Order: sequence, then structure tokens, then C-alpha cells
Amino acid sequence: MKYVYRFAEGSGSMRELLGGKGANLAEMTNLGLPVPQGFTVTTEACTRYYTDGETVAPDILGQIGEYLTKLEDETGKKFGDPGNPLLVSVRSGSRASMPGMMDTILNLGLNDAVAEGMGNLTGNPRFVYDSYRRFIQMFSDVVMELPKHTFEVLIDELKESKGVKNDTELDVGDMKTLVSRFKAYYKDKKGTDFPQEPRDQLMAAVAAVFRSWNNPRAIVYRRENDIPSGWGTAVNVQSMVFGNMGDDSGTGVAFTRNPSTGENRLYGEFLMNAQGEDVVAGIRTPQTIDQLQKVMPEAYAKFAEIAGTLERHYKDMQDMEFTIEKGKLYMLQTRNGKRTAQAALRIALDMVADGIWSKEDALMKVEPKQLDTLLHPQFEPTALKAATPAATALPASPGAACGRVCFTAEKAKAESVKGPVLLVRKETSPEDIEGMIAAEGILTARGGMTSHAAVVARGMGTCCVAGCGDCNINEAGGYLTIGNTRVNAGEFMSIDGSTGNVYIGAIPTVEAGISGDFDTFMRWADEVRTLKVRTNADTPQDAAQAVSFGAEGIGLTRTEHMFFEADRIGPMREMILSVDETERRRALEKLLPMQVKDFEGIFTAMGPRPVTIRLLDPPLHEFLPQKPEDIRALAKDMGVSEQTLKDRVDGLHEFNPMMGHRGCRLAVSYPEIAEMQARAIIRAAVNVKEATGTDLVPEIMIPLVGDVHEMKFVKDVVKKAADEELGGSGLTYMVGTMIEIPRAALTADEIAKEAEFFSFGTNDLTQMTFGFSRDDAGSFLEDYYRRKIYESDPFARLDQTGVGLLVKMAVELGRKTRPGIKLGICGEHGGDPSSVEFCHNTGLDYVSCSPFRVPIARLAAAQAKIRAK
Amino acid sequence: MKYVYRFAEGSGSMRELLGGKGANLAEMTNLGLPVPQGFTVTTEACTRYYTDGETVAPDILGQIGEYLTKLEDETGKKFGDPGNPLLVSVRSGSRASMPGMMDTILNLGLNDAVAEGMGNLTGNPRFVYDSYRRFIQMFSDVVMELPKHTFEVLIDELKESKGVKNDTELDVGDMKTLVSRFKAYYKDKKGTDFPQEPRDQLMAAVAAVFRSWNNPRAIVYRRENDIPSGWGTAVNVQSMVFGNMGDDSGTGVAFTRNPSTGENRLYGEFLMNAQGEDVVAGIRTPQTIDQLQKVMPEAYAKFAEIAGTLERHYKDMQDMEFTIEKGKLYMLQTRNGKRTAQAALRIALDMVADGIWSKEDALMKVEPKQLDTLLHPQFEPTALKAATPAATALPASPGAACGRVCFTAEKAKAESVKGPVLLVRKETSPEDIEGMIAAEGILTARGGMTSHAAVVARGMGTCCVAGCGDCNINEAGGYLTIGNTRVNAGEFMSIDGSTGNVYIGAIPTVEAGISGDFDTFMRWADEVRTLKVRTNADTPQDAAQAVSFGAEGIGLTRTEHMFFEADRIGPMREMILSVDETERRRALEKLLPMQVKDFEGIFTAMGPRPVTIRLLDPPLHEFLPQKPEDIRALAKDMGVSEQTLKDRVDGLHEFNPMMGHRGCRLAVSYPEIAEMQARAIIRAAVNVKEATGTDLVPEIMIPLVGDVHEMKFVKDVVKKAADEELGGSGLTYMVGTMIEIPRAALTADEIAKEAEFFSFGTNDLTQMTFGFSRDDAGSFLEDYYRRKIYESDPFARLDQTGVGLLVKMAVELGRKTRPGIKLGICGEHGGDPSSVEFCHNTGLDYVSCSPFRVPIARLAAAQAKIRAK
Repeated sequence: MKYVYRFAEGSGSMRELLGGKGANLAEMTNLGLPVPQGFTVTTEACTRYYTDGETVAPDILGQIGEYLTKLEDETGKKFGDPGNPLLVSVRSGSRASMPGMMDTILNLGLNDAVAEGMGNLTGNPRFVYDSYRRFIQMFSDVVMELPKHTFEVLIDELKESKGVKNDTELDVGDMKTLVSRFKAYYKDKKGTDFPQEPRDQLMAAVAAVFRSWNNPRAIVYRRENDIPSGWGTAVNVQSMVFGNMGDDSGTGVAFTRNPSTGENRLYGEFLMNAQGEDVVAGIRTPQTIDQLQKVMPEAYAKFAEIAGTLERHYKDMQDMEFTIEKGKLYMLQTRNGKRTAQAALRIALDMVADGIWSKEDALMKVEPKQLDTLLHPQFEPTALKAATPAATALPASPGAACGRVCFTAEKAKAESVKGPVLLVRKETSPEDIEGMIAAEGILTARGGMTSHAAVVARGMGTCCVAGCGDCNINEAGGYLTIGNTRVNAGEFMSIDGSTGNVYIGAIPTVEAGISGDFDTFMRWADEVRTLKVRTNADTPQDAAQAVSFGAEGIGLTRTEHMFFEADRIGPMREMILSVDETERRRALEKLLPMQVKDFEGIFTAMGPRPVTIRLLDPPLHEFLPQKPEDIRALAKDMGVSEQTLKDRVDGLHEFNPMMGHRGCRLAVSYPEIAEMQARAIIRAAVNVKEATGTDLVPEIMIPLVGDVHEMKFVKDVVKKAADEELGGSGLTYMVGTMIEIPRAALTADEIAKEAEFFSFGTNDLTQMTFGFSRDDAGSFLEDYYRRKIYESDPFARLDQTGVGLLVKMAVELGRKTRPGIKLGICGEHGGDPSSVEFCHNTGLDYVSCSPFRVPIARLAAAQAKIRAK
Repeated sequence: MKYVYRFAEGSGSMRELLGGKGANLAEMTNLGLPVPQGFTVTTEACTRYYTDGETVAPDILGQIGEYLTKLEDETGKKFGDPGNPLLVSVRSGSRASMPGMMDTILNLGLNDAVAEGMGNLTGNPRFVYDSYRRFIQMFSDVVMELPKHTFEVLIDELKESKGVKNDTELDVGDMKTLVSRFKAYYKDKKGTDFPQEPRDQLMAAVAAVFRSWNNPRAIVYRRENDIPSGWGTAVNVQSMVFGNMGDDSGTGVAFTRNPSTGENRLYGEFLMNAQGEDVVAGIRTPQTIDQLQKVMPEAYAKFAEIAGTLERHYKDMQDMEFTIEKGKLYMLQTRNGKRTAQAALRIALDMVADGIWSKEDALMKVEPKQLDTLLHPQFEPTALKAATPAATALPASPGAACGRVCFTAEKAKAESVKGPVLLVRKETSPEDIEGMIAAEGILTARGGMTSHAAVVARGMGTCCVAGCGDCNINEAGGYLTIGNTRVNAGEFMSIDGSTGNVYIGAIPTVEAGISGDFDTFMRWADEVRTLKVRTNADTPQDAAQAVSFGAEGIGLTRTEHMFFEADRIGPMREMILSVDETERRRALEKLLPMQVKDFEGIFTAMGPRPVTIRLLDPPLHEFLPQKPEDIRALAKDMGVSEQTLKDRVDGLHEFNPMMGHRGCRLAVSYPEIAEMQARAIIRAAVNVKEATGTDLVPEIMIPLVGDVHEMKFVKDVVKKAADEELGGSGLTYMVGTMIEIPRAALTADEIAKEAEFFSFGTNDLTQMTFGFSRDDAGSFLEDYYRRKIYESDPFARLDQTGVGLLVKMAVELGRKTRPGIKLGICGEHGGDPSSVEFCHNTGLDYVSCSPFRVPIARLAAAQAKIRAK
């Protein structure tokens, strides 16, 4: 088995085997570009490293040795030869670009003897010992896991004792001192001398790269980006060129186009007399690539030419690293450049205009999730630059927000009429909903990416930072502290839900929308896709926003939020406390006209587009207070005895509310609730039809069905009430169900006898299929990622193996009974690109997602269609 | 469509259409036995009654009218003709015998004119007016739903005013008075006169029978007995004969063999000068059938002959009703007789010995659930010897029971959750059914061996003593007296349903075993069945008991109960409160030797039989207290701060514990727990193997797996620890999983790569597949039964459509990957006969159930095998 390839043996198409970096080095070599020679250890060697129990097998070590000898022959230099030493860089490179892994070790091959010899050879011993101390530092850090920080301290101590400020002020003697202090520290910590044999250095470095594939940061990154852990990483060993050999040397990184704006113009920066790490580390301030033209016009011209060649060759914007050694340009890396969403659109439009890409090419080049950033308010860039985060937590719902701090939902609602507010809570609960709606942004001290705050905020498109443990909230005292800083209620804070940054004070924000390049691009997506995109929306405002983002209907209107509003919660609670049907009907009678108004608003906002409304879903106890003091207060308010209320609260208590008395089970016990809602939906539709002449066809959705008899019972209740409301309106409507219980999927042929449409509620379906609740899984899912049992969050990315199999079964069974049955999905997966692709391939008619994810779903649907060809 | 059949048009094979009673009346008619003529309205008419919105359609009414005319022709009598009146009885009769529905209306056809005429014709006006007042009473009660009780009050008032004690002391004038008072009461309540037109009476009675098919008691009974609601009931209309025409008349019920013991000898009772309802109601104490031989030798001889004919014809023990009118015998009903389990076995053995049944016939004749009663407790012999019966009455249903006295069914139901209760009633009625199910035993003050209490108790296998006249019940006062001794509600009494003895105070009971007839019969079952039967047992005691009941292994040992014992809970809590792995291992080290002892006990009890042990399953918070005061006490005990303990309790709190951090998820987070358990299992097995030379193969079961990677991770942990414990023992062991998460069933092909056996945990699988938890479903399942959405409890009877489909998929997928994979079931369904049949048909290797259900499962497995032929 061949585990090592010279650059000249590879090609750009061997990405899987050689990793992105290795494949591109090979490709550049083949293009005849000036690439320092070297070789790549394959990703298969990495996979073997893990199957062999985290050791590099002797046959692989043998091949590396062999290729090193070849490299010595090619370069004419020799590892460890003080008279003509070969030095190499060692870099990781997986299939997909992946921050988090070990990146680079430079100058490998240096030891005491080589340093001495090179000092004489180059006549520049300061440069040599500077390189040596850098190498010891990097090797100790990334290979031996000694803290980098300690080495910085040793440098600082030396500078202090010499009374100098910059590294450049240290002379060759100082560098030698550092080398010996570093080596002493190494020996003290590791118990052995710093390795002097270059081949030992190399083998240890290769193993370290393999090991870094599974460090925690890399695992998190892979999970976030759906990269399988089985891919592994390659290792690139490349002979060194030196950007730090004097003022005719330098090193830099550049893009063929501007990665922030997409402008078609070289963009980048470089440092004279420096090695690559200096650019990345940001210790010295680099110059812009334009200035290179002045400093070294020849090298610049050569670089600009190569940049053009590479972009034309790869047909995409390139991100390149280069080094100039004594005036000669070397290319160290090229890859397709990462870009902001804005730049991605601009580049796509330019590439299509220039005839380089087809529209379909362009659609495939933009990452759907990226579009999200274009839809949310952002901090005003200049103001942001001046601000320092006070804390960083989970980026739970994107966008930027700035407002006055409120510690309760009531306060947030009340204050929001005066100006923007930020709701800051330990954690949120369903009672907070109105405050959450009123707030510009939500900050919680506890909870993860799937906590109540996070889920609701994403659904509403409200910015949210969650689980900010640094934030100590004293609700009673009306203040919070972060470190030593105190923020009182009413003072300004700002949060960035895309980065998780939390700022004390106000940072102004700017709004976004779909227009210009963005609009053009989305129209291309619409031309291609066949999967419809609807939205989940509970208010006319959300509905209108979603339409402006391109939603073609509503796939899910949850009616429960409507009952938390101040004028509703009273009658709602009366209804729950009713002792018999008559009392219950009396309370429902009060809710009816309010529900009619709710639905009129939504139908008006959506015009002729289809609207699916789900009947009441959560267990009734969610509408009652739980704490003794709240129960006492409410009992007084309602004029019932505290005991009566407490008894009802106790009576409604559930061990597992997720698996309790909710969904259509409520309608089985209290059909009059479903009846009232059906009546309100149809009455509202008739009113809107009559007022506007719009031909709308409401879709009434029965939640949590698990058996056809259950479906039939509730449907009969709904139809009876609905038909009574129709009058002479000529309105038609549909009754369908959510498929969110495994048994519903398993018996979908039966259920389709009664249901006119299915909407897959993949949130609950995932919970039931996996047998764990989203609220509780947080306590163990981290362990599952750490042990590589799960590679992605099944609540974010649809589990196609298990849950997906149920969806496929239900689609097949449902269509068997009712060939034209309308099929959609309304779980949060509706806005996740890989899940959207699954829905397209499974033959669903539409996906439904939160308004802010509508453009993502539109693009993902187009990409799925193109990929399926 | 033909909805009505004359008896002579039907046959015994038309049970589905005519109901059991109608088919047997037809069969007896065809056999030439003396059956009063009549006709049957079919079960299809009942089904139409419901599809037609609870009305009897005109075509059906027409056919009934037509057949009534035919009956008039046959009998030569006429409905409503005072000179020659036809009277009929109206009785329900479904396919399966079903208490809870409307049973019987006698004397229909009586009105003022007919009564007058019949008085003259018979010369016995007292008999006629007695019949008339009974008819008004029955009709008002069952057809018009006026409370029966009121009529009893009117009778009591009259008796009081006349100063008499017995009904028989009332003369013809009194009967006329009662008739007119009853009619007046009827008019007062219903607003119309009591119907005088016999055809109107008949049509109303037929509709009432149909309606009674869906009364709540009937629904409860069907659910308990797995009878589909779609079957419907037939209605039998039969010309009346009169057992109350004087001392040459009488009525009775009898069995061809003793239904309590199985003794091959006529057994029954009769009342002279009475109608059937008097026997059933238990108002007068009847004579035994033997006495009939003395009183009316000819009628007795004829009856004995017919009884023999019927038993030979039906090849089964018969339960018959008869009436003697002026010396002439009429057969009113026959059916296969219900019998105690003891009788069933005796009859089966006798029938096989006599060559009437094959062994397989015999196996099919015994209801598996009935065997339960044979395993039910008997009094502890020494305690019994020391006890003196306070009274003795009829031994109505065998077994011994001891419990706290409850005087109402509601109370019995409510109190039964706290401990055993004894239901004590004057007499029981169908409304008491739920209390009867909840009670350990039933004691009645009135009624005979065929009273409601006795029949129902025998059917359920519940111990019952009936007709205890010494027992004076003061329900309102909440006490009873026997002689001078008073027993209050809530105090203990004990009854022996095999002897009829009643004791004040508690006599401890002991379990019974398998021997004699029972043992022989069970061996027949074992010869036939191929499905193995294991038991669920957590202690050596349970294991030994199960083996004595025929268990062939343990399918499920739950290890969590072991940790609640006094010496374990301490280290267990230490383990849970540990802050790191080192601390946790220290606590686990203390538990290890205790677990080794646990498993040694179980392995020793089971010998070479297979034993499956499940690793820790419940969430850790189950081992910690929840109430503030308990937390305080424990913190003090453990020497930790209250806050530390509270924080850990809070940290472990789960919204949905059923779907939380439990099962193998614990082992993923804390592998050292699984490691300790694996070590304990293998160490115990090696010890027992070395001590006894028994070749045992422990089966280690990983719970709650949903993904193959999860299975593999925990299996690796288990195998590593287990292999270290093997030493040179030569022991082998297996590692498998429970299939109890839908996703495990859906991906069983993957999971079978790692699992050596599957055990279907159908309790959890049912919860997840239906999406409701057993603990919470109580609040709505009643509504589901009431609305006829579910017909049986999916936790008691395996849902073959949904959950069963997952089981079938998993069996197929699992065998595809690992053809010889061992398959079993360990949910509670393992002891339910219909579920056992499903397991046999699905090709499982074994079922596992609680020890007391082992004989049930053995018989059910044999029946499944026979039925599948």
C-alpha cells in the first residue's frame, strides 16, 4: 500500500487521498509554478494510525523515510548535515479546510550542529538561531503539548532584563540564550533532551498531526460542519524556504478577490523579513499586498501573474500563501478562498457575467447557511471595531442586538414601547414569550443551543446568546455582574448572536433585507428548484417577513403562543379550571373572537398562499403557574381558592410532559377546544375571503396523531364545526395531520385514509425515535460527541438512517392510500440544507422553516435539485 | 338483507351472526329439545343500529314485525290478545359471553288488558299481576333507565304498611296496587303512560339491547377480555314459559360438571315457583339440583338426560338454564360452562382420559390467563390453624385473600393502590366491575354460586365467598358486624374462596406451586410448544420460584433494585456525588463485592439455565431524595453540605426522565459503572462455575441502545473488563442489547453487527412508539376507551400494528446480519397470551415474564403452536 506521494506524483483531483493542501501543492507543481519540493503522507495513513491504536505503523514510517531520502536527492541537501542542511515544514491538510487541527511546524531539521553550520553558511547566525528557537517553541507546543505561553514568558523576561521592547532588538547572543533556555525548560518538563535527530523530529511531528485530527476543537468543528470523522488528515512535508533571510525576503497571504466584498482585485498582506507564523500571529502589523508592488515590483508582478493563472485554472477565487526568499517567489499553498456571504454573491454574479460559471455553477458555490448573516441586523462595522467583548457564550440565534437590560418578560414588554430592550434571564420558559417577542435580543446565563431561549429565538429570528456562565444575574437586586463590572437594569448591553459575543454598552446596528445581488441570486435558485418553501409563522408580522424572504405559504402556525397574551391567558386559565364541559365552553366562547382575529391577521398577510394551522399542542399545565407564590397570586386574581388552583396544578402534573396529555390527546378529552379552534379558523377564512375576494384554502392540522381512530375522531369534531361555519361562502378547506409519533409513520397507510395532508414534525419524531428529549439530551450529548458516537446533532441535522427511514416509510405508505396526498416538513430541520436535500430526494412537496431560514431553504432546494441530476 | 332468524332457521355454527345464545337456542331446537319458540335479531342489525346513528332502521323493524307474526302463528297466541296472549322474553346475546350488557326482560307483552284476561284464563291473578309488576320494573330499568332502586322502595313501603316481611306474603290486591303505583311513578318520570302496545314494548326493548352494547361496563369488560367493539350483540325474542305458576313450576341453572372442582356430576340450583331473575338476583336462597330429584323426579330425569345429550353434542361441559312450567321442562339456554382453573384442568384430564379430547384439544380448552388463580396465594397453614372462622358461606371462587375492608367499588379501586383490599358488598352488580378487578377478594352477604359476584370472580380468578348471611353490612355507617363483632372499613378481614370460610383480622397468605393435574397439564403444553419461556427475576428467591413454575432461564435481571438496599444506597449515592472519575471509582469499588454476591445468588439459583443481566438503567436522580427535608437529612448523613447535595439533585433534574440520561447513556458518560457491573457478573459466574462445576453462559444486556456506535462503545467497555475477569476459567459469555428505542428496531441490521442477542423491551418500545409515557397516559387513556379509539391497553396487550411492525422489522434486519442471533422479549407483554402468540408467529426464541406468568406463557406458547398449524 502506497502511503506517501511526491508532489509531482499527485494532482488536484486526489483531494480525498492527499487532502486539500496536498492536492493543490501537487496541482501547482504540475502547472510548473515555483513550489518548494516535498511529499504528502496520505489520509489513509491517518486512518491506519487510528485503527492501529494510535501508532504509526512501521511500513508507513519506512515509506516516509524513503521519500525523505528522495527529497534529499532532489534538493541536494541532507537532513542533519551541518554543511548543507535540509529543513522542512510539516503541515496538516484534510479534505475540507478545517481549523482546530495542528497547523504548521516550520524549520524542522534544525539541531545544535545544523544551527552552528547554517550560521556559518548563511553568514546570518541571528536568523538561524531565531529560526531554531521558533522551531523548539512550535515543536514543544504542538508535538509535545508544552504550553506555548511559557516560552513567551521566557522571551519577555529576556527582553525585560535587556531593557528592549521588540523581538527585533534581540541579537544573535540573545537568540542563543533563548535556545538554551528553551531546551532547558523542555528537558525539565519532558525529562529528556530536545530531540537532535531530524528524522525523530519528523516522525514525531507526523504522529502529532494525526493526533490533532481528534482534538476537541477539531471534533466540535467537524460536528458544526458535517465533516465525517472517518476522513482523516494528510500531512505535507515540504522543504523550507525562508522569508526571514533579510530585506529581500518576506512572506504573505493573499486572495485573488476581496473576501469581504467580492471586489475583483488582489487583496492580502505581507511582512518583510518574516516567517509565515508572524503574519498569522498578528505580532507585527503587515503591509497590504499593493505595497509589495512598490517594495519588490518583480516579485509582485510574478505573484499577480500566478494569481491570475490559479484563479483561471481553479475557476474560483483563490486564497494563497507565498514566501519570497532573497527576491525569489515561492508558492506555499493555494485553495478556494473563504468569503463572506456578501462577497460570495458578488463573486457569483461576476463569474456568471464573465461566462466563467453557469447559473447552476454559481448556485452550487454559495453555502446556504451563509445567507443567514445577510438577513439579520449587524453591528455598525466602525462601532464594532472599537468595542471589546465582556464575555463570549453560545451563538444561539444570529444577528446583532442592542438594548436596555430587562430582567423579566413583563418589564421587557413594558419597556419595549419606549425603545429597544434586551431580555436577560437565567433561562427562559414559555411564560416569557411576550417579553421574548418584545425584546431586540435575548441573553441567558444557562442553557445550550437547543434550550428554550435558543429554539424560540431562532424561530422568531431574534438574536440570542445563550449559556453565558460569566453573567451573574441578580434579578431581585435588578443588576448583573460580569467579572467586576456591574450592569443595572435599564442600562445598555449589546450581543452578537452570530459570534456569541456579549458587550457592555450600546453598539449601533444596521438592518438587512433581500435586494440587489442577493435578490438576483435567489431568483436563480427559484428558477431551478421544484421543492416549495413555506415558513413557520405564528403572527401576521412573522408571516409578512417570511413572504418578503420568499416564503410560498405557511407550513406551521402554532396556536399556543396566542394564548399567552395578556387578554387570552385569563380565559384560557378559566377554561383549564372548568369543572365540566358547560363551564369550559363558556370560557372557550370568550377565546373564540380573539382566535378569529388572530387568524384573520394571518390569512390577510398571506393572501392566496396556503396556510397550515395546527390545533393546540402543549399540555395544559404550561398555561398555569408552578411556583407556590405565583399560584397564590393567580388564585387571588381569578377569585378561586388557592387550594382549588393548587389541586388543578397538581392534577395536571406530568412525569414526562413530552409524552403526556397534549396534542390531539387534548382534543380527545376536550373536543370543545378543537371545535372552537376549527370554528375560528373557518370563520376567519370566510371573513377574509369575503372582504378581499381572495380564494384561500385553510389547512387544519391535527397534532400528535398515532392512530387512525384518533385522527378520525378529532377530524370529525373539526369538520362538524367547520362545516357549520362555511355558510354560503363556497370556501374549501383541508384537514391533515402532523406525523411526529413513530406509530403514525408506521401506520401512515391507515392514517392517510383520514388525513388530506401529512406534515412531518421532525422535532418530536426525532425525540421519540431516539428516545431522548431535547431538553434533557444536553446532559449527555457532549459525551456522545466526545466518544464519536454521534457526529452531528440529530435535532439540527435530520438523522436520515433512523428518523429518515420512518419519513420514507410514511411517504410511501401515505401515497399508497392517497396518491395525491400533500407532504411537507415543519420541524426545525426544514431550514437545514442537508435535511432539505433529504426532503427533495424523498419527494416531499415542501419544507417549512422559520422566516429567517427561508432563503437558506430556497438555495438548499435548488442545490438538491442540481445535485440530484 | 336478512336480519331476523327463527330458531329453527339457525344452527350452532352461526355464532357470529346470531350470538352465542341465539346459535345455541337454534342448535337445541334442531336437536329436538324442548325449547320455547322464538327468533333472533342478528348482530348485523346491531352494527347497523350504530352506523345508522343509533336508530333501528325501518327495514329491520319490518322484519321483526314479520317474525313476530310468524311466532304468533307457531304458538297460536297473539300479542296483546287478552283471550290468548303471547308473552316473550328479550335477551341480549353476543358472540362471546359478556356480562355488563342488558341481560333479560321477561313477560314482555303484558299490559292492563292482557293482565286482566290472563288472570281470568290462568285462575291465578296474583301470579299474573306479580309478573306484570316485575315487567314494569324491568322495562323501566333497562329500557327507560329509571332507577331500579325506586321500585324496591315502593315495594318495601307497601310491605311495611301491611306489616309483612316477604314478597310472598303480598296478595293479588297488593300486586295490583304495586302495578298502579309503578305506572304512576313511570308517568311522573317519563311524562308518558307506560306503553300498553306490546309491539312498541318489543321495539323499544330491542333498541335498548343494542344500546347496552356500548354502556361503560360493557366497554370495560370488552377491554379486559380483548373483545372487539365491532362485533355487536344479537337479540333473542322467545315465547315465555313460567316457572312461577305454582308449586309444580320452578326455574334453575345447572352445569353438567362441577364448575369449581370439575367433578363429573350435575351441579346447580333451582327455585320453586319463581322466575329466572330470582335465582340470579340471589334474593331467595335456592335449593341444589340434587333436591330437584326428590321434588320432581320426572322433570329431573328429563333434565339429566338432556344435560348428557348436550355435553356429548358440544363435547364440553355445559351451563344450562331451564324452567319447569306446570311439570313440563323447557330449556332456555345452554353454553359451554365457565369454570375455575382447577375445574378446567380436572375436566381436561377427564376428557382426555375418556378419549373425547386429544391432548391438543385439551390444551386449547383452557384459558391461559385462568391458570393464574392456581398460583394465587393460600393461607399460611400454621396461621390458618390458629384462626377461627367468624362465619362460613359459599366457596364461590377459590384461593385465599386478606385485605382491608372496603364497602364500595370506588373505595376498593382507590385504596388498592396502597395495599390489598377486600371488597365487601351486600351483593355485587355490573357497576362494581372495576372495584372487583382491584380487590384481592370479594365477600357478599347475599346470592348463590351463580350470583353476579360468584360468576365474575371465577372469571377473573379472584377469590370470592358469596351469600354470607351472617355478615350484616352497614355501608352508610362504614362497618359490618358478624355476631357481636364489629369490623370497620379499613380493618383487615380474610376469606377462603375454596372453603367459604370468613375470618376477622389478617391471615398471612403463601404462594402455591405446580403439582398433580396442573403439572400433568403443563407437561402436555411443554411437549407441544417450541417457544421457550424465561422469567424476569431480580433476586434468587424470584428466580427459584420461577424455576418451580417452569421457567427455562432468566430473560431480564434488573440490577437497579439491588442498589436501593440499605447497605448499597450509601456507596451508590457517593458514586453519584463524585466530582471526578477517581472518586467515582472509589465508590464503585465498594459496590463491586456486593454486586458479585447478588449475581452469585442468581447464578446459583438458576444452575445451567441462561441468565440475562441488564446493566444499570434508571436515571441517577432516582437514587437521590427530592424533598428538601430528605435532602437535608441525607446531607447530614453523608457529611456533605446541603447546598452541594441540592446542586447535584438540581443538576440531575430532568424534564422527561423517561427520555433522559439513563440506560446505556449512563455507561457512555460513566463507563466505569458498566465496567464494575461487567466485572461483577463475570467474577460471580467464574466463582459459581468453580464452586459447582456448572457450565453457565452469562448474557450481559446493554439497555436503551439506539445506535450501533453506542452499542459498540459500551460493549468494548464491558468486554475489556469481562475478559480481565475470565482468568483461566474457560467461561464464555455473551453481550447483547435490549431493543426498546424505535431507532434500534429501525437500524437493527447495524446493531446486530455488535449485539449477540436482542431482547425486545416492549414496555419502553410501546411508550416511544406511541409517544406517551405509561405514568402519564392514565389521564387520557380512559377517554380513548370511552371514545372507542383504543380497544385495549397497549401496555398490557402488544400493539401488533405499530409496535409489532417494529419488532418484525428488527427480527428480519437482525437475522439478515447475524442469522443465529438469539431473540427474546422481556417486556410485560411476555406474559400476555395474545402477545405470546405474536412472539411465536414472529419467530422469537423465547418470551420472558414475571414468575407468576410463566405457566400462562407456557400454555399460551403451546396454543400458539397449535393454532399456527
